[in-house]
Amino acid sequence: MFQGAYSSQLLEEAVNQFASLPGIGRRTALRLALHILDEPEENVMRFTEAFSSLKRNIHVCGKCFMISDNEICPICDDRTRDRSTICVVENIRDVLSIENTGQYRGMYHILGGIISPIDGIGPSDLHIRELTERVKDGAVREVILALSTSMEGETTSYYLYKQISAFPVNVTTIARGVGFGDDLEYADELTLGKSIVNRHPFNTI
Amino acid sequence: MFQGAYSSQLLEEAVNQFASLPGIGRRTALRLALHILDEPEENVMRFTEAFSSLKRNIHVCGKCFMISDNEICPICDDRTRDRSTICVVENIRDVLSIENTGQYRGMYHILGGIISPIDGIGPSDLHIRELTERVKDGAVREVILALSTSMEGETTSYYLYKQISAFPVNVTTIARGVGFGDDLEYADELTLGKSIVNRHPFNTI
Repeated sequence: MFQGAYSSQLLEEAVNQFASLPGIGRRTALRLALHILDEPEENVMRFTEAFSSLKRNIHVCGKCFMISDNEICPICDDRTRDRSTICVVENIRDVLSIENTGQYRGMYHILGGIISPIDGIGPSDLHIRELTERVKDGAVREVILALSTSMEGETTSYYLYKQISAFPVNVTTIARGVGFGDDLEYADELTLGKSIVNRHPFNTI
Repeated sequence: MFQGAYSSQLLEEAVNQFASLPGIGRRTALRLALHILDEPEENVMRFTEAFSSLKRNIHVCGKCFMISDNEICPICDDRTRDRSTICVVENIRDVLSIENTGQYRGMYHILGGIISPIDGIGPSDLHIRELTERVKDGAVREVILALSTSMEGETTSYYLYKQISAFPVNVTTIARGVGFGDDLEYADELTLGKSIVNRHPFNTI
């Protein structure tokens, strides 16, 4: 982007750091670094403090493995939520996405990934044992598998199903189908096929 | 993006800080904040240190007003550069852009903006007096005006021209024209017109 010999090392390092973030190129990184230069010092301190504080003080929930400011996350701590249902997801992002829909009032369980032999991730690298412990407890009546539909995701779902089905719980999976508002003609065959196979009674609500 | 009630305050603050950067939306900010969470603590510390250090330790060059790690910037300090030519620009970015071309070996002078009555910026708010001081020195033979072609830019260029032309220096301006590789048919009329008016002997190099 600019010649090292004539630039400030301080600026260069700031640009490098921004450019190390995913999806941030060197041109954008330079723009962001120059923005930082223009900001009052207190804003820059607040900016940097947010990240070191996030890294230093964040907890992982002892029950569901969601990130949290406390030992137990607000979802697990919320007495108004349905403790008989656990939705199993791969990561933090998935929980945020589902929470964002406002359609789910149960618990979560973050696996921390999916079984992927190529990446050297086996069942023991994921929070599977902790899930079976929770199911064993007896209070759980439904486990919703919300993993990706990749080969690894399907393998993991099947593995979990085999582990959990030993207990008296319903194992379900989220519906896959043509997206809301999407045209049928543009949906891929697999998705449209799933939509037809998984049809359900017409809901007038 | 996600419901405040169930999110971590620490995460929320990190997302807010990323989202305060220009061109970064809340969705991207969340992705970046989660990336920070995944990084080892030493990387996060290096990340935050780069910005506080940039803000705390940067200097403004006493001659040309470029940012610098020292009192005088490496460009002003470089004995191999042509001290008889000063290129006048609006900001740091412009210097970086021109340096990036590798086509200029003279000095710079950063005005710190352009004259803009609407924004309350008059000549005394810019580093114009310092420019005339440099020109007065006698060693300068050419001043290149590389300001924007907006009304404010043209006004500022004219103002500078009036100030500088009292001294025995050539005042020039950068060429405007159809971009390299651009089709004539897509160039706007003003630009194409400038290209024709400012035609120059065909260069076989």
